[in-house]
Amino acid sequence: MARVSSLLSFAFTLLIFLHGYTAQQFPNECQLDQLNAIEPSHVLKAEAGRIEVWDHHAPQLRCSGVSFVRYVIESKGLYLPSFLNTAKLSFVAKGRGLMGRVIPGCAETFQDSSVFQPGQQGQGQQGRGQQGQGQEQEQEQGQGQRQSFRDMHQKVEHIRSGDTIATPTGVAQWFYNDGNQPLVIVSVLDLANHQNQLDRNPRPFYLAGNNPQGQVWLQGRQQQPQNNIFNGFPPEVIAQALKINVQTAQQLQNQQDNRGNIVFVKGEFGVIRPPLRGQRPQEEEAVGNGLEETICSARSTDNLDDPSNADVYKPQLGYISTLNSYDLPILRFLRLSALRGSIRQNAMVLPQWNANANAILYVTDGEAQVQVVNDNGERVFDGQVSQGQLLAIPQGFAVVKRATSDQFRWVEFKTNANAQINTLAGRTSIMAGLPLEVISNGYQISPQEARKVKFNTLETTLTHASGPASYGRPRKADA
Amino acid sequence: MARVSSLLSFAFTLLIFLHGYTAQQFPNECQLDQLNAIEPSHVLKAEAGRIEVWDHHAPQLRCSGVSFVRYVIESKGLYLPSFLNTAKLSFVAKGRGLMGRVIPGCAETFQDSSVFQPGQQGQGQQGRGQQGQGQEQEQEQGQGQRQSFRDMHQKVEHIRSGDTIATPTGVAQWFYNDGNQPLVIVSVLDLANHQNQLDRNPRPFYLAGNNPQGQVWLQGRQQQPQNNIFNGFPPEVIAQALKINVQTAQQLQNQQDNRGNIVFVKGEFGVIRPPLRGQRPQEEEAVGNGLEETICSARSTDNLDDPSNADVYKPQLGYISTLNSYDLPILRFLRLSALRGSIRQNAMVLPQWNANANAILYVTDGEAQVQVVNDNGERVFDGQVSQGQLLAIPQGFAVVKRATSDQFRWVEFKTNANAQINTLAGRTSIMAGLPLEVISNGYQISPQEARKVKFNTLETTLTHASGPASYGRPRKADA
Amino acid sequence: MARVSSLLSFAFTLLIFLHGYTAQQFPNECQLDQLNAIEPSHVLKAEAGRIEVWDHHAPQLRCSGVSFVRYVIESKGLYLPSFLNTAKLSFVAKGRGLMGRVIPGCAETFQDSSVFQPGQQGQGQQGRGQQGQGQEQEQEQGQGQRQSFRDMHQKVEHIRSGDTIATPTGVAQWFYNDGNQPLVIVSVLDLANHQNQLDRNPRPFYLAGNNPQGQVWLQGRQQQPQNNIFNGFPPEVIAQALKINVQTAQQLQNQQDNRGNIVFVKGEFGVIRPPLRGQRPQEEEAVGNGLEETICSARSTDNLDDPSNADVYKPQLGYISTLNSYDLPILRFLRLSALRGSIRQNAMVLPQWNANANAILYVTDGEAQVQVVNDNGERVFDGQVSQGQLLAIPQGFAVVKRATSDQFRWVEFKTNANAQINTLAGRTSIMAGLPLEVISNGYQISPQEARKVKFNTLETTLTHASGPASYGRPRKADA
Repeated sequence: MARVSSLLSFAFTLLIFLHGYTAQQFPNECQLDQLNAIEPSHVLKAEAGRIEVWDHHAPQLRCSGVSFVRYVIESKGLYLPSFLNTAKLSFVAKGRGLMGRVIPGCAETFQDSSVFQPGQQGQGQQGRGQQGQGQEQEQEQGQGQRQSFRDMHQKVEHIRSGDTIATPTGVAQWFYNDGNQPLVIVSVLDLANHQNQLDRNPRPFYLAGNNPQGQVWLQGRQQQPQNNIFNGFPPEVIAQALKINVQTAQQLQNQQDNRGNIVFVKGEFGVIRPPLRGQRPQEEEAVGNGLEETICSARSTDNLDDPSNADVYKPQLGYISTLNSYDLPILRFLRLSALRGSIRQNAMVLPQWNANANAILYVTDGEAQVQVVNDNGERVFDGQVSQGQLLAIPQGFAVVKRATSDQFRWVEFKTNANAQINTLAGRTSIMAGLPLEVISNGYQISPQEARKVKFNTLETTLTHASGPASYGRPRKADA
Repeated sequence: MARVSSLLSFAFTLLIFLHGYTAQQFPNECQLDQLNAIEPSHVLKAEAGRIEVWDHHAPQLRCSGVSFVRYVIESKGLYLPSFLNTAKLSFVAKGRGLMGRVIPGCAETFQDSSVFQPGQQGQGQQGRGQQGQGQEQEQEQGQGQRQSFRDMHQKVEHIRSGDTIATPTGVAQWFYNDGNQPLVIVSVLDLANHQNQLDRNPRPFYLAGNNPQGQVWLQGRQQQPQNNIFNGFPPEVIAQALKINVQTAQQLQNQQDNRGNIVFVKGEFGVIRPPLRGQRPQEEEAVGNGLEETICSARSTDNLDDPSNADVYKPQLGYISTLNSYDLPILRFLRLSALRGSIRQNAMVLPQWNANANAILYVTDGEAQVQVVNDNGERVFDGQVSQGQLLAIPQGFAVVKRATSDQFRWVEFKTNANAQINTLAGRTSIMAGLPLEVISNGYQISPQEARKVKFNTLETTLTHASGPASYGRPRKADA
Repeated sequence: MARVSSLLSFAFTLLIFLHGYTAQQFPNECQLDQLNAIEPSHVLKAEAGRIEVWDHHAPQLRCSGVSFVRYVIESKGLYLPSFLNTAKLSFVAKGRGLMGRVIPGCAETFQDSSVFQPGQQGQGQQGRGQQGQGQEQEQEQGQGQRQSFRDMHQKVEHIRSGDTIATPTGVAQWFYNDGNQPLVIVSVLDLANHQNQLDRNPRPFYLAGNNPQGQVWLQGRQQQPQNNIFNGFPPEVIAQALKINVQTAQQLQNQQDNRGNIVFVKGEFGVIRPPLRGQRPQEEEAVGNGLEETICSARSTDNLDDPSNADVYKPQLGYISTLNSYDLPILRFLRLSALRGSIRQNAMVLPQWNANANAILYVTDGEAQVQVVNDNGERVFDGQVSQGQLLAIPQGFAVVKRATSDQFRWVEFKTNANAQINTLAGRTSIMAGLPLEVISNGYQISPQEARKVKFNTLETTLTHASGPASYGRPRKADA
């Protein structure tokens, strides 16, 4: 009997296998019966904040080929520099701070000017060698006459709510929260992009700090605590490479450190930075540094929260701004783009789909009623999404959004540098582009009805969701 | 005994598994022992035609990463608008008709001119708003004085046998058969291309109509009937979005409709269209619409059946025409190209292979003897292919074709915007490019024989397959 | 008992399965605990050399998506023409020889000039037709008066140690060793690149010769001996296509041939070739042939062993040269690049990683101590690599190299046309680009220590690894 039952259990296991295996042979990863508004599955806690990771094995994220992370950095918190195996597009959901990225081979263009005597202007190369020497001497002399020299480093930028930040693969990045409220940044990592040459897992490489919990988002084996890169080299090698003593080299390994990857800054955080955006003239960047337009000075940040730059704007309803490779050319290399939306209570985003991209929708404020329809014509999502939730909408899946709170604000990351939206209703919709005869024959309706289907909605993107009362009345303000 | 036999059957199952699994770990999808001339595996019947789908799990299609479909549309039949998750390249194998595509954001440039008073020329935007209003009024007034207005919609094109049509991912497309014989269109869908951001399955999204059989080509689970996109939204939402009443919204869902995705048009199909090609001047398209060259007016169709455009032409043997991204720039985005061939009885296409593409060969007329050789030097196909059959020829596999009927005509779709052909014999062949010494040493033949191997065949592509009598005689007419 | 044990063994098998399967569902191919310096796993012996193949199923090669091959061609050996399903980047590790590639559609620009009478210059097309006829007549007449005509074929190039050769997908290539020592060529085949449209296996297609052992590197089934392409066609078809007799056609199939794919040349190897590089003027190529710059004349070879072209050069330490798509534009299509390094005893390559590429390191001379650190901060390799060994370094993995023999020389192939290197130490390093505050807070060190970390190492790439004595002393010669 026992044997029969074990045989049965084997048979059952085999069946599960067989099913899984057949599916695996030609994976139907995007045959989704159901989408869910999903929340982070893993939280990495650190001294001055936390990193919240969505499970990239979730069916809808797998289908979209992305991973999603939320960084919450407390006031005075410093997210230590790390880099990734993927291109990353980030959105500052809340707060303000500083960001630095280190691009290999670019010059340290942010310099404390007090070190330069008037006659040394324009002798960067030589001047720098001298500083190096000066600094060495200074160390040996113990605080010599040249202690006015402080630092020089690569570009540091102010970031604030609404900023969208493009980070190429392998570029190290750090954040510092210099505001009073938490700095919240959400990021999509494009695993399926060919810029990721490893497997389809997000792989952060830490330059400093550590992660005692390990890469919990990786399946299939026991996780070791994750350490920074220095930790993997013998201290003697680090000492040789950096020409420092072994004690300092050991310190770089952060082995005794249990602060995680977001730490509190002690004392003032006095990095060299320009005055806040808005206060500086538009051209300052190029003029100030005297650099040509290279990858070193390529713009990689844009703010999507300024309604004056909106692509669709209806005062009573809200606005929508997009950021693609025409706005921010670096996105061409990342093959990512973004859309920011903000709508008021009862405003509706007309049904639409992405023709050539998957979209990852993250709610920054408020809540909305959302419906999503798949390729089979089935409603695979019908529910509320609210602040902090994420919904992945695969290519071609149609979606309707209606604000159910005072304000509904979201950001959509799209896996194409120029994602194309098609709408089902409105002036620029599929319906408007089809001949009357196709509509009337396709849906077996009269030409009069077909005309209404084509021409009644004059808006392009946003409309009121206020019920039948609004039907049949043409509107003046079109979006 | 029973137990032993079930253990054996388990063991057997496991072995199959083990084999499959090992292969799966690092799939040898293209280690093909045998190719077959394959026919459709699924037929979706509709009121006015049928959609025939090849099984994209077939080893040779899997290796090539494509799916293949044949649309047969009866006279007066309308293939309702749908779009796909992949780029599509289509060839009109038989018949003639109309085609419309709706590109999001492009203007409705086909307008019934009777609505425009002379003074309104060139005021499209404003004129349109007025029409919208006029049309609304008209509906309320019940056929007012402005009933001369009929319709405006996006570009409609005539298509006829030989036309090759490029359709980008996500662009909705419809066809109408305005001829007397069936309109037959074959299409390749490029699943492996990065423009498909879903899994490697063809996924049609229906804007109208339905498919009661469901997506039968998807493996691994029970299929639901496939409905159009409207079906997935609540009728109230559709009514709000389109500003129509709920009854019409329900009608758009095609739920009571059992006509499938190809329907008969009732009455006249009076869409606005230009006169037939050939009757209009070459430049009309650009001049007629006054549009700049944008994606909206990008040419996406070319005819491959006109021998006057042939790339290889030998009056006694036949012709070959190619269509790549130099001819049709939109193919650069689709990463697809096409080749049309037509040869007479006993003509032979010299042995050749595609250096950088997989090829999907579909026979439109007649039959031929075809041999295909794989990377192991094994003949993996040696047989007849005849009208309506398909043969997928992977990258690098060498192929020889000889017509065995009066006329053999085929189309080849290639998974590269500029597929490169290498030939084994002929003036531009590998053999001609190799030094004599390499040939004589490689094959252990005399320099005299090596010279014959290099120089005897002066043709490039087509030759007579009339037996030994033709050897050794130089020909004048080279192709 | 027997049954119980077989049940147990089943259970065990299932567990292995289950584990493999879960991993397979979302493969963690790059979660590497350990790298190894690997050597070839298969050797294909031939008459005049051998082909050594690394197992592309090895975890580190799988993660990098490449295959690796070493060709050893004896003096007077001819590697018979073959082509691949992948782009290939090769490096001549030892020896010198000739190389020919046959690009489809390009003209036979290497011609024995004795055949041209002075008046025939510039009548290539017509002249060639006449030659064809002449040659035919000659055969029938048996060595007529025109026997001065020898041959014409596509470009033949001299290659020598240090040459890096780009070969696009599907282009046939042969090599001949005209030196006295073995000619050793190592090649990386980029399986993961979209130019390979087959599965992720290297698939050589032989135009001549054969491989009695079969494609032993393919898993999952019994291997057949591998034959050349002609072997797959019936001799009658070959005879018809090449217009030769059936006996010669059979000879082309190499069926009686057991020499493999590298054969000894009998007698003189008299292919037409220009004088050796260095002896000819720089511009000769373009002038000599009178061709425009097309794919036919695109440069595809560059020498990385000339220190005068080095990108990093320190007389006491060594040099590093890179070859990317700015140097050799054809690499843009191949999406590959290369780096050549040569360092002396105790020189150290500062810790660095590739931001956007996997790297395949092959040691051509000497040996070095190498450490590699993965994304988890673990040392996954710490050992000697010596001549003939290979180490695959995945994207983002940091690596330090120290020469432990008189001379350590290596070549790195990278899976990106413009691979970007980031360094952990040195003037252009991540550390130098970070603000002092980030370093001091990140590693909990004093600002003084942080300054040392940032500024002590003034070199960019190469430094002495001579122990603590060198710390703290600024250097003059920077690389």
